[in-house]
Amino acid sequence: MKSQYTNLDTLKFLIHKVHHTDSVLGKGRFEAYDPASVDMFLDSIESLSDTELFPFIKDMDENPSVFKDGKITIHPQFKRIFEQARDLGLIASIFNEEDGGLQMPNTLFHAAYYIMEAANNHVTGYLGLTTGAANLIATFGNQALKDEFLDKMLSLEWTGSMCLTEPQAGSSLSDITTSATPTKNGSYLINGQKIFISSGDHQFADNIVHLLLGRVVGAPEGTKGVSLFVVPKFKVNEAGEFEDNHVITAGEFEKLGQRGYCTSHLVFENSEAWLVGEENRGLTYMFQLMNEARIATGRMGAGIASAAYYASLQYAKERPQGRQLTSTGDKDLHQEQTLIINHPDVKRMLLHQKAIVEGSLSLVLQASHYLDKEELAEGEEKERYHLLLELLTPIVKTYPAEKGIESVSQGLQVLGGYGFCQDFILQQYYRDIRIISIYEGTTGIQSLDLLSRKVNLKNGKVLQWFAEEITETIQEASQNPDFSVYASELGQNLKMIQQVLTELAPIAQKGDYERYLSDATIFMDLFGTVVIGWQWLKIANTAQEVMKADSNQKVAMEGKIHTMKFFYKYEMSRTKGLAKTMMNQLALTLDFDLDYLN
Amino acid sequence: MKSQYTNLDTLKFLIHKVHHTDSVLGKGRFEAYDPASVDMFLDSIESLSDTELFPFIKDMDENPSVFKDGKITIHPQFKRIFEQARDLGLIASIFNEEDGGLQMPNTLFHAAYYIMEAANNHVTGYLGLTTGAANLIATFGNQALKDEFLDKMLSLEWTGSMCLTEPQAGSSLSDITTSATPTKNGSYLINGQKIFISSGDHQFADNIVHLLLGRVVGAPEGTKGVSLFVVPKFKVNEAGEFEDNHVITAGEFEKLGQRGYCTSHLVFENSEAWLVGEENRGLTYMFQLMNEARIATGRMGAGIASAAYYASLQYAKERPQGRQLTSTGDKDLHQEQTLIINHPDVKRMLLHQKAIVEGSLSLVLQASHYLDKEELAEGEEKERYHLLLELLTPIVKTYPAEKGIESVSQGLQVLGGYGFCQDFILQQYYRDIRIISIYEGTTGIQSLDLLSRKVNLKNGKVLQWFAEEITETIQEASQNPDFSVYASELGQNLKMIQQVLTELAPIAQKGDYERYLSDATIFMDLFGTVVIGWQWLKIANTAQEVMKADSNQKVAMEGKIHTMKFFYKYEMSRTKGLAKTMMNQLALTLDFDLDYLN
Repeated sequence: MKSQYTNLDTLKFLIHKVHHTDSVLGKGRFEAYDPASVDMFLDSIESLSDTELFPFIKDMDENPSVFKDGKITIHPQFKRIFEQARDLGLIASIFNEEDGGLQMPNTLFHAAYYIMEAANNHVTGYLGLTTGAANLIATFGNQALKDEFLDKMLSLEWTGSMCLTEPQAGSSLSDITTSATPTKNGSYLINGQKIFISSGDHQFADNIVHLLLGRVVGAPEGTKGVSLFVVPKFKVNEAGEFEDNHVITAGEFEKLGQRGYCTSHLVFENSEAWLVGEENRGLTYMFQLMNEARIATGRMGAGIASAAYYASLQYAKERPQGRQLTSTGDKDLHQEQTLIINHPDVKRMLLHQKAIVEGSLSLVLQASHYLDKEELAEGEEKERYHLLLELLTPIVKTYPAEKGIESVSQGLQVLGGYGFCQDFILQQYYRDIRIISIYEGTTGIQSLDLLSRKVNLKNGKVLQWFAEEITETIQEASQNPDFSVYASELGQNLKMIQQVLTELAPIAQKGDYERYLSDATIFMDLFGTVVIGWQWLKIANTAQEVMKADSNQKVAMEGKIHTMKFFYKYEMSRTKGLAKTMMNQLALTLDFDLDYLN
Repeated sequence: MKSQYTNLDTLKFLIHKVHHTDSVLGKGRFEAYDPASVDMFLDSIESLSDTELFPFIKDMDENPSVFKDGKITIHPQFKRIFEQARDLGLIASIFNEEDGGLQMPNTLFHAAYYIMEAANNHVTGYLGLTTGAANLIATFGNQALKDEFLDKMLSLEWTGSMCLTEPQAGSSLSDITTSATPTKNGSYLINGQKIFISSGDHQFADNIVHLLLGRVVGAPEGTKGVSLFVVPKFKVNEAGEFEDNHVITAGEFEKLGQRGYCTSHLVFENSEAWLVGEENRGLTYMFQLMNEARIATGRMGAGIASAAYYASLQYAKERPQGRQLTSTGDKDLHQEQTLIINHPDVKRMLLHQKAIVEGSLSLVLQASHYLDKEELAEGEEKERYHLLLELLTPIVKTYPAEKGIESVSQGLQVLGGYGFCQDFILQQYYRDIRIISIYEGTTGIQSLDLLSRKVNLKNGKVLQWFAEEITETIQEASQNPDFSVYASELGQNLKMIQQVLTELAPIAQKGDYERYLSDATIFMDLFGTVVIGWQWLKIANTAQEVMKADSNQKVAMEGKIHTMKFFYKYEMSRTKGLAKTMMNQLALTLDFDLDYLN
């Protein structure tokens, strides 16, 4: 039976064929992996997802996490899920062997999480935050911290959280005020409040390990005075007993979606904490791992969109409604009603979803592949992969979020009135996915990052490297008479991006940064669309090869090529208009009388 | 204090100045109305909305209608709302004096409902369906039916519903099977099931009057055998007593949004019914009033988007976050945090909402004005307004739905993480508005209507009339040096639409209707955007005049002109891409192996 939320064949095709993951297997830190072990692991993840994740997604929405008497209680199924995750080594996966890890390639890690997120997007946050928190300790913590926390976290006996946001400082981390007062024994006492803390409290871990950004008393203002701390919910004393560390769960945020994934408000009252790395370097540490979190967020968006696509596809294949038009434009009532999948507009909505879902997934895997390459490479090559990933990261975060919302909405539309009803799951995916463009830096923040820092990395050199990557795909496609028109269109789009940047450059050079960045979100839309256009052409190139080599793959591969053409007809056609907006000189979102907004 | 969900000044400006409603006041059936009475009525509606509607919107979502023991119970506040609506003559408003009505201009009626919908979109359906059902009886029913039902409905003692959809026939009305068996006394016995029946059952009316589409036993198949019936929940016998008419409430649809507005599943078991008009003409009658329902649906979309705009605007004016960029691109931490309304990307999201909300509202009023003109005119002029309205109707239904969803989503995004939390109302509007593109014919259905029937009305003559309307606006704008560039752009867009239709025409002529219509939804996006571009230029023309005449209006009018420019920079820039997609010859949504969708 086919999965109801994703297509494992497509995932494996993207991993092995399109993104050449096999080229990193068996090498360096990935020595223990080969193509067969990759597939086996993905199969086991799908099996876990089929039995323990997907069957519970609706129930987690209908019976969400609850705050009562200072505690948050999450859905009972999480007990079983955490046990299974432990058995599969899901937290240990990406860590170094010396820390008890499995040194899994990033591509495999993200692919596995993608499957789980497509099956049930309320689950992976608990695992991902534990991974992220443990990773901060493993990367920047001293041996004492590693000894204290890593084993327990990698085995998921203790889970992790990231405490960044404060009530007065949402996206603006320079304004956080949570204080850290040094104690005589080298630890710190934390006082302050943190909000929107995902996985901040629940009943299925013996301890919760908070990685927290705070400010050592007397530290410089702004981001330069922010330090990173480990603050466990319980301290373990020398007798091995748990002592309460005064991390108070003050409430929970009830949400539009992802209601099984708890979001807490935490208050720290003289909670004992240990510094990670050096004082005042907290944000630097955090940002070295932020890429990972941003890729994970985009991946989750792609996963939810995948689930919505397959749910609407199944409905379209089963629901009879209306009739195909005859040559006179009338309906022949003697015919049976047709299945709605036979209506062109329904096919369009399904292809649109497929184009966004698989394009987004491919981009996530592209980013993961750069990460794998970076980990194996040395010197300049390492830098190249690192910076290509830096450039791509805001897009990996944003495209699956913004277009994923659109894609899920199309999925809901396929069901008509039933899409709006709670008996069907589309309405839940529509709610769940809405957070993705907000998590881990909103679309606006990602767009500023792209246009201010990323396209200008190394004075534009990184953008040039990126253009080389795209040009390679263009050159391959232009060998194929059936693809040359798309190759040429992608090339023109690449030039158009350069033209937009050239047009904007003098504004930044004059120091008018606010104006330079005022349409950053439009630029993100433009750049993101071109990047996915690149991914689709890359997919089509590979599909052509695979089809030649294996006739069993013919239909599946023709489907990829068809979807590439669809993407160019319906999505790449948007880029010129976006470029036109970017090059329009009217600065309509800068200074104007705010009473215009009345 | 300003309204928290709409701007009455803008509404009055659109009514009196942009759409010249005053030109129909005091004439013919609108004899009793003058500009002052229009404003007074709108003020009273705003006052009702402020006190009885807006304060309950969140509670209606949190305490939705409930089905239990064969009955649906709706929020208790509806008792009070129905009383007030009765006192204000809201149902009687558009009916003829001879039927007990107030002969209100359609523009005023729609403007009043718009205010109520912006305040609380869960309310107006109960009123609107009663109006619609009563209107069918008034227009096509015999005197006996009028005598029996109109008084009770116009006073809202009895409410109405429309029973079209059946489980096996959603958008496809030719497939309805509910049967009507004639009785000896001239009535019929109805048997069948109807689903998605809004306002189908609740506790605040003495009786519920269902207008139902069914098939007289032995009638022709398809739409030609569909008749219209009145089926009351209770029959009144000669003694004036209520008798149960076997209309069984079998269940309720729990929905993503509009949870205060009940949606029932009704079963008719030998329910006695009376024919409206003649047998087999039911769909013809229904469609003569469908325009009204479609305008109402678009209007509701615009209303919800308005509420979301003002909610996000208020948040943006109160929430400090981050700092304005300095000339070095850095942030000056010595400054206080700025309000988020000062960030260009937030201004963009707010202007985007304003452009969609007011553009949509203007289109709704444009359609209402055509309706008013039609009602006053005779002969060819009457036909002209009637057909212009026919052409516009699918766009009035669709633009505020599709772009309204986008607009509300932007409003949610303005709030960041809080937008996703149930403490704030944006998440509710995001859910509520999602139905608008499905109600009363989905976007796909409306788009087929536009491209198959509407643009070809009278062999394209109507489209030409419509082009004349737009050209008038263009000519006025081109007199103004500040607007001539927009006038020229609108003109080019009009030509582009013609070009797309010329390109497509041979496909229809060859009889390949399925292909001709395959991208109808893209055409709708194109056409709709141009129509709103027209509305904005029209608004700007008027704003310029008003500003000259009244310096107190300067800021508000500059705001309209600014938003017009915003619409052209950010939205009209999309049309060329849409036209390109339309003219792309690849038929990617027609015949292909459905296994491509895997």
